[in-house]
Amino acid sequence: MLYYVFDFLEKQYHFPGAGVFQYITFRSALAFAFSLLFSTLFGKKIINYLRNKQVGESVRDLGLDGQIAKSGTPTMGGIIIILATLIPVFLLTKLDNVYIIMLIITTIWMGFIGFVDDYIKVFKKDKAGLKGRFKILGQVGLGIIIGSMLYFHPDVTMKQKLAPQNQQELSVKEGKLVFFGKAEKTLKTTVPFVKNNELDYQSFISWLGDDYKKYAWLIFIPIVILIITAVSNGANLTDGIDGLAAGSSAIIVGALGIFAWISGNIIFANYLNVMYIPHSGEMTIFISAFVGALIGFLWYNTYPAQVFMGDTGSLTIGGIIAVLAIAVRKELLIPILAGIFLVENLSVMMQVSYFKYTRKKYGEGRRIFKMAPLHHHYQKLGYHESKIVTRFWIVGILLAVLSMVTLKLR
Amino acid sequence: MLYYVFDFLEKQYHFPGAGVFQYITFRSALAFAFSLLFSTLFGKKIINYLRNKQVGESVRDLGLDGQIAKSGTPTMGGIIIILATLIPVFLLTKLDNVYIIMLIITTIWMGFIGFVDDYIKVFKKDKAGLKGRFKILGQVGLGIIIGSMLYFHPDVTMKQKLAPQNQQELSVKEGKLVFFGKAEKTLKTTVPFVKNNELDYQSFISWLGDDYKKYAWLIFIPIVILIITAVSNGANLTDGIDGLAAGSSAIIVGALGIFAWISGNIIFANYLNVMYIPHSGEMTIFISAFVGALIGFLWYNTYPAQVFMGDTGSLTIGGIIAVLAIAVRKELLIPILAGIFLVENLSVMMQVSYFKYTRKKYGEGRRIFKMAPLHHHYQKLGYHESKIVTRFWIVGILLAVLSMVTLKLR
Repeated sequence: MLYYVFDFLEKQYHFPGAGVFQYITFRSALAFAFSLLFSTLFGKKIINYLRNKQVGESVRDLGLDGQIAKSGTPTMGGIIIILATLIPVFLLTKLDNVYIIMLIITTIWMGFIGFVDDYIKVFKKDKAGLKGRFKILGQVGLGIIIGSMLYFHPDVTMKQKLAPQNQQELSVKEGKLVFFGKAEKTLKTTVPFVKNNELDYQSFISWLGDDYKKYAWLIFIPIVILIITAVSNGANLTDGIDGLAAGSSAIIVGALGIFAWISGNIIFANYLNVMYIPHSGEMTIFISAFVGALIGFLWYNTYPAQVFMGDTGSLTIGGIIAVLAIAVRKELLIPILAGIFLVENLSVMMQVSYFKYTRKKYGEGRRIFKMAPLHHHYQKLGYHESKIVTRFWIVGILLAVLSMVTLKLR
Repeated sequence: MLYYVFDFLEKQYHFPGAGVFQYITFRSALAFAFSLLFSTLFGKKIINYLRNKQVGESVRDLGLDGQIAKSGTPTMGGIIIILATLIPVFLLTKLDNVYIIMLIITTIWMGFIGFVDDYIKVFKKDKAGLKGRFKILGQVGLGIIIGSMLYFHPDVTMKQKLAPQNQQELSVKEGKLVFFGKAEKTLKTTVPFVKNNELDYQSFISWLGDDYKKYAWLIFIPIVILIITAVSNGANLTDGIDGLAAGSSAIIVGALGIFAWISGNIIFANYLNVMYIPHSGEMTIFISAFVGALIGFLWYNTYPAQVFMGDTGSLTIGGIIAVLAIAVRKELLIPILAGIFLVENLSVMMQVSYFKYTRKKYGEGRRIFKMAPLHHHYQKLGYHESKIVTRFWIVGILLAVLSMVTLKLR
């Protein structure tokens, strides 16, 4: 909202300094500082409130050192992340931007599902929480909303770089520099590693006949649903030891922030040879607020944790990461960028299937890992919780850099 | 060196893919991945070697929990950082670049001083280490070398942005886009907060009369000496608990990397309204290798630490940060950007002076902090080492973002 205030001041009265509000970098930095300070300064109060309300989600007894000390630590801390993200977003972004609207919907929607889940676990003392069916229904519902918005909203477009000679021709004709073609509504996305790195989801259904483009949503919306479900479950599983999910997510989201900033800026997109996505730069402000919120949450969540994010946090984080990645058309990079989530997920799947398989074959279930998800495996091996978390962060940073390399940015 | 190999392959044989080596971003990402992998993969071997050679620098007994466990942890781990930085730098940078030469000199010079200091402490069992006098002499010596190179080397220049009408005029005349004026040798630096944010060190001695520009080195070299000494001592003091110095430095250096990348790229410098510093972009590759080395070192140095960096590490880190900041002409941002080092330094100075003052006045010394440097104060207050470190990192990230805001990047 402040954006509109300063825009008005600038336009009507040429108020000194108000012009700087136009700039995405400036508003992003402000959003980051605001959310980081909000979550550290008010986090303590929210944590105390949560602790008073909850007897503390009784921690699942895994037979790990230091677990007893953790009973009494309140959960649902994701509320801190959500508030610290949304307040600066409301203050600093253009609220009519389609990407901002999508991200706000995602945050509230997934936050609500996670909250209900946590609520049932903590207050109804039902360890299973929200029935799996409802959780998936929520994820699918969000997928349909976001998928439809991306597919049908006229502001969701992209521009493709023109060949040098066409650039020059158009530049002469229009009397200004032209790097990109007209805005098109396409389902093109970025493919890692490949030289001419674009893929059009529409092409999957070209066998439908001449009219196939009309039915492209039939392929696109399920893809969006799949990604949202997979990433939010991945984030959910990764949230197991102090600071792991918050820190790893901050790294992933930070990398997506760089993608959003570049893709939304015509000069950078041209120079770095990536597709230009009009309006997407505004997401950088949301992303900065979100990273600030995650880091601020980490202030209390780092070992030894004073609060857990709960599903309120992890499902929301997963949902936002999925939507961000799809919006900047880098969703095919998720397996690399969010490799931590993937590996945690795989470790559970491998453990469970191997156990079932061996129980069937040998009458006795065997395990691949000492415990799943993977982070517990290292705990059982005797690594200190704090060291496991920092090392997962380091791997996350390496993956973030590698995912940029796959684009052959130059 | 690989740079030259690929440059040759590209120019002579148009070797497919070799052209990508031209790009600073590509070489930077490669340098980062290389140094991170090198330090994590070979770190363990180096640590084992150090442990065998040393009985372990006996940890200063501060009466803190868990200290006993730390005796036996080897020091001089800075060697890992130095090797993991220099190897990719030799492989991937243009070795005739003046900034790269300066940074290599700094790394080896400060690494050597730190190593001698550590060697005396560990093997001569002399806790004082290298006499303060020699340490300062080393820092001053480096200051003179770096100050002179910056002052006299013809490649160290900057270009200032032209007013829009001059840009246009020149663009028409030269038949291509011109944003910046001619390369000049100046002592201009960036001043935070101020609108027209530049300061020329020469102006300090304009009272010397008409010939004052000839004597500008009289003011510039002492400034360089001062900054190198201050920052390397700051890094030295910050190195007190597991992962603190390595992590905080990685954040500071990362921010300087962004400055170097922008200042060295004529398109970004123009768009973001910062001074353009020819040849400085190459530093980004050194910086990426250095950040990778710091993060890789953190793999073993994070709580509970398997190795300490020693003065070999902390003096080198401080020296490199100082030189980087001066080279990108952002040294006046150091008090904000490296605020952690500053506060740690101040806490010691305040503690010592207050103690001396009260001892004189009341006959009994009093303390401001339970213990200095500041991180030990929080340890005495009962915070877990791991939590203190993560929180210092978080403050470091906030300071890095704020230091960018002061430039009014847009």
